[in-house]
Amino acid sequence: MIDYGPFYARLATSPLAPWLRTLPAEVHRWQTEQLHGDFAKWLKTLNTLPDATASSVSLDAVIRFGEPDDLSSGQRAKLEALLKQFKPWRKGPFDLFGLNIDTEWRSDLKWQRVLPHLDDLAGRYVLDIGCGSGYHLWRMKQAGAKMAIGIDPSQLFLMQFKAIQKYAPINLANDVELLPLGVDELPTLQVFDTVFTMGVLYHRRSPVDFLKQCWQQLRPGGQLVLETLVVEGDKYTVLMPENRYAQMRNVWFLPSTDALCLWLRRSGFKDIEVVDLNTTTTEEQRPTEWMENQSLCDFLDPNDRSKTIEGYPAPLRAVITARRI
Amino acid sequence: MIDYGPFYARLATSPLAPWLRTLPAEVHRWQTEQLHGDFAKWLKTLNTLPDATASSVSLDAVIRFGEPDDLSSGQRAKLEALLKQFKPWRKGPFDLFGLNIDTEWRSDLKWQRVLPHLDDLAGRYVLDIGCGSGYHLWRMKQAGAKMAIGIDPSQLFLMQFKAIQKYAPINLANDVELLPLGVDELPTLQVFDTVFTMGVLYHRRSPVDFLKQCWQQLRPGGQLVLETLVVEGDKYTVLMPENRYAQMRNVWFLPSTDALCLWLRRSGFKDIEVVDLNTTTTEEQRPTEWMENQSLCDFLDPNDRSKTIEGYPAPLRAVITARRI
Amino acid sequence: MIDYGPFYARLATSPLAPWLRTLPAEVHRWQTEQLHGDFAKWLKTLNTLPDATASSVSLDAVIRFGEPDDLSSGQRAKLEALLKQFKPWRKGPFDLFGLNIDTEWRSDLKWQRVLPHLDDLAGRYVLDIGCGSGYHLWRMKQAGAKMAIGIDPSQLFLMQFKAIQKYAPINLANDVELLPLGVDELPTLQVFDTVFTMGVLYHRRSPVDFLKQCWQQLRPGGQLVLETLVVEGDKYTVLMPENRYAQMRNVWFLPSTDALCLWLRRSGFKDIEVVDLNTTTTEEQRPTEWMENQSLCDFLDPNDRSKTIEGYPAPLRAVITARRI
Amino acid sequence: MIDYGPFYARLATSPLAPWLRTLPAEVHRWQTEQLHGDFAKWLKTLNTLPDATASSVSLDAVIRFGEPDDLSSGQRAKLEALLKQFKPWRKGPFDLFGLNIDTEWRSDLKWQRVLPHLDDLAGRYVLDIGCGSGYHLWRMKQAGAKMAIGIDPSQLFLMQFKAIQKYAPINLANDVELLPLGVDELPTLQVFDTVFTMGVLYHRRSPVDFLKQCWQQLRPGGQLVLETLVVEGDKYTVLMPENRYAQMRNVWFLPSTDALCLWLRRSGFKDIEVVDLNTTTTEEQRPTEWMENQSLCDFLDPNDRSKTIEGYPAPLRAVITARRI
Repeated sequence: MIDYGPFYARLATSPLAPWLRTLPAEVHRWQTEQLHGDFAKWLKTLNTLPDATASSVSLDAVIRFGEPDDLSSGQRAKLEALLKQFKPWRKGPFDLFGLNIDTEWRSDLKWQRVLPHLDDLAGRYVLDIGCGSGYHLWRMKQAGAKMAIGIDPSQLFLMQFKAIQKYAPINLANDVELLPLGVDELPTLQVFDTVFTMGVLYHRRSPVDFLKQCWQQLRPGGQLVLETLVVEGDKYTVLMPENRYAQMRNVWFLPSTDALCLWLRRSGFKDIEVVDLNTTTTEEQRPTEWMENQSLCDFLDPNDRSKTIEGYPAPLRAVITARRI
Repeated sequence: MIDYGPFYARLATSPLAPWLRTLPAEVHRWQTEQLHGDFAKWLKTLNTLPDATASSVSLDAVIRFGEPDDLSSGQRAKLEALLKQFKPWRKGPFDLFGLNIDTEWRSDLKWQRVLPHLDDLAGRYVLDIGCGSGYHLWRMKQAGAKMAIGIDPSQLFLMQFKAIQKYAPINLANDVELLPLGVDELPTLQVFDTVFTMGVLYHRRSPVDFLKQCWQQLRPGGQLVLETLVVEGDKYTVLMPENRYAQMRNVWFLPSTDALCLWLRRSGFKDIEVVDLNTTTTEEQRPTEWMENQSLCDFLDPNDRSKTIEGYPAPLRAVITARRI
Repeated sequence: MIDYGPFYARLATSPLAPWLRTLPAEVHRWQTEQLHGDFAKWLKTLNTLPDATASSVSLDAVIRFGEPDDLSSGQRAKLEALLKQFKPWRKGPFDLFGLNIDTEWRSDLKWQRVLPHLDDLAGRYVLDIGCGSGYHLWRMKQAGAKMAIGIDPSQLFLMQFKAIQKYAPINLANDVELLPLGVDELPTLQVFDTVFTMGVLYHRRSPVDFLKQCWQQLRPGGQLVLETLVVEGDKYTVLMPENRYAQMRNVWFLPSTDALCLWLRRSGFKDIEVVDLNTTTTEEQRPTEWMENQSLCDFLDPNDRSKTIEGYPAPLRAVITARRI
Repeated sequence: MIDYGPFYARLATSPLAPWLRTLPAEVHRWQTEQLHGDFAKWLKTLNTLPDATASSVSLDAVIRFGEPDDLSSGQRAKLEALLKQFKPWRKGPFDLFGLNIDTEWRSDLKWQRVLPHLDDLAGRYVLDIGCGSGYHLWRMKQAGAKMAIGIDPSQLFLMQFKAIQKYAPINLANDVELLPLGVDELPTLQVFDTVFTMGVLYHRRSPVDFLKQCWQQLRPGGQLVLETLVVEGDKYTVLMPENRYAQMRNVWFLPSTDALCLWLRRSGFKDIEVVDLNTTTTEEQRPTEWMENQSLCDFLDPNDRSKTIEGYPAPLRAVITARRI
């Protein structure tokens, strides 16, 4: 099992303490009733990772723990073989002891676009809703966050996170955590200083309820950092695909930025700013040795890269910041 | 208290029997914990209504129970005084013993527009989500429904319904019922043959979830009859007001009919048809002796009746029918 | 499945209506999650019972539905073969179309001892906690009860009951019902006029809580009819067996009648009377063609019939009546 | 409010961690819904206690924190006045900065009788069910317990405990805690090395269920230390008072030691030993300046100190030790 005891201990004496009223029971329910069919196998893989101490740490564009010499060559081969059992690796990049985990996404590029617009993270409690493998959690910590907590219902991403966290120095590892929960499983905490949610809103059947859920995690004055797919158009423009969008199932609302800003106003936010608009490139999202499935290049119309293969506008992503009233 | 015993007895041996797993507990919770502040007063009014037997019945444009001679003049004055305690009366018209209850809405006009497009109601179990005073429930019964059940969270509308139902012949009264519930309080029954929901969708923060909830009440092949505010535009057009719309708070999504049809497709419906489009007139919705508050005439721009006083397009209502896949 | 719809309909307009707040959900939970491993087989057996109409009815010492001529000989052989699949039959006797179901217990003898001490059952709602196959329910109905409802967690006893009920005339069948519940699953109803519980108390780990549970089912002034194993002794005498008692597992407290009366006083009862004391005989409880396991004769010390084979006093049963304060 | 955050942090990384699945929610429910009517007043008193650092500690017969010189005379007068607002003080004695809290019970005498029979407490997790003001918790800590946790539903006793704990050195204070819960609110933990329960069993309507609850808190092989009122007699002797016993309401079963040992065997215990039998004296339980109500001397028959004023045998207390199978 994944032991969240030290994390609960951190929560207990923090402003997040009210979370203890529901979290341990939820995690236990998950561990006893809702494990992924491959979880036992994954856990075994995780527990088989070579023990090693990282002699260096870097949380820059590449999250890097350890140097090549920290591992024997046998350990290194084993590490690579085991980590590849957690494919597909989507958000990164990471580097463990010189082993480069070249993920589908260059998530560092997104961070570069987001970082200049953040309220100073120093000393802050930060939540990342839909955090994937947790790449950005480490960047938040780098930027000064007191604690960076991610939630993501994917148990595979939890495994990826735990594999990376294993090699982080203990003081860092204690400040960065990932919980295998969906946003609907969060109680109304109203204590986070910053809430990130990147690449989630278009997967929600109710975008307004989702914005309210983000609101409910923030303290008054706390900052929301929202990244999602948008379309061109005025404040009455909202695209919903008939079926898939860029091959993704489960895509619901793609609003214009004006419509999205309106939704944010109706949801209790102020100081709303569109701080970035970016057409995703095949440099930022592409197949690699660590993600061998199809990627963006396969999801676009081969004759017109400005459209998805379904004929919708190609992925355009906005970053919007706002503050809870 | 309102006694739903005979209604539960009807449910128990009907296809709606699974509802008994939750309904009596919910109604009890409502009666013990969630009564409106005026409920006791209203109930007293209801229980003071004169006892009388209606010598005639008519469920045409006016829901009519009884003739003037069925009441003494004293009883009649009392009836009028008491029923006026349940103002504002919005959906009607009704006539009790010659006392005409001239409601804000000429709901018979809406029924005229809807009726031609209905699957034959004969022998059907019908649900009306957001039924108001229940006017249309009687029309559904007139059209042959086996049972017509409405839900509406307004406890004042429940009082209006109960006052009317009191004078209905017992065999009719047993087939028509109103429950003070919101749609979120319905279990997934999947047994109704027809689900009506008129004037509700634009009040929902999550229209897609609402359509799913309607879906969950229908048996496969069952018919949805949806009436809601729409706007002109293509399938990517959705209006959300900044604040109020035609003075109403709590208005969220006003899609184009094309957008709404798309939402219905994504929610599991087929055979989707826009069967009526109608700009609400001040003949259909207007203040009366029984609804003395402001009405549509006050909510439109006095200089341009095609706009609301907030500057949005004036109310345009679509009726859409669809069938559950 | 067992359809309790008509029973719920009866409850809905009776003083027992509050039971609907919990009962349908509980029964559904049982039918979906807690079925006995043989339940599907038993249900098939039940549904295979020959259809026949009983031309006569008698609820005397033998519960008797139908005459031999009401069935063909083939039907009769089938009936016997199927009913024997519900062995062991413990409480009876029953007679269906001349087929005598000679049960382990001559429960009519117990009824003879109890009957003279009952408050008149005419028009009463009666509950029998731990009713077994329901034999006494029919006797309660015979004695005038408006409804006689039994609970017993054994699903085999439910099958036996349903097999008998199938041949009862509809007006009788509607007034007599058995639910596969334990006493812990009853809400606090406080409406029954009479509560019977025979042969249950010594199986309860907490006899005082059990008496309270009986109390909670009774209306003020309602009568409790309690039959249980007792021992000789003063009001401080209570036997608990080290392990089994007369081969029964799960036997806890066997008080003297004085101790039991004291427990009743402490539990909110008055008018407490020990109306019968009876050493169970091997005439009353014995193996038969319908119960071929061991019976009382095997549970007594062969050399001293006044002792169980474990050396405890042989079964002595008291009937106590009391009224709820 | 009482802040249990540091305690939860201790639990989180201990064998007691599973308790976090229910405890914080329970404590929150208590703090928001079930506070004693005087709780706000008591809390204010508690928060007004003078801040001071104890220069000495002693956990012998008297639980003693601090020396007279650690407080000014004004602080000392204030301390006494405030602590007396928490009267009646029943279990002790305590001494804070030379202020002797002379409680109704000389609980040190009970500890003397119990101590020789305990499995070595060194390093153990210990639970005290019905711990009163928590006097014995400090003695358990003195005897080496890793953590000593008491539960008692009395919120006044919680205040007394918190007043004492305030002056304990932090390392001690962290290892000793009291929760305002009843035994029914404990989940099945099965991890405590030792469970104490002194003076509780006779208040339980179901003594066997209570023994099972103790069992459910112990790890296999863990020790139960049970102290309760008993009577003379054989294993079939159990006294239940008609009403009060020694003026106490809510007294149910007073078994002989033989009966109690039998109950323990039936509840899953082995190595059962009656290690002490003691008639409570008016030296051990008596009124003091800190408990001015009636005490034992008033509860005994003035003419025959071997009887209570109700005529029952005077309080005789047994200590029984046992181990969970």
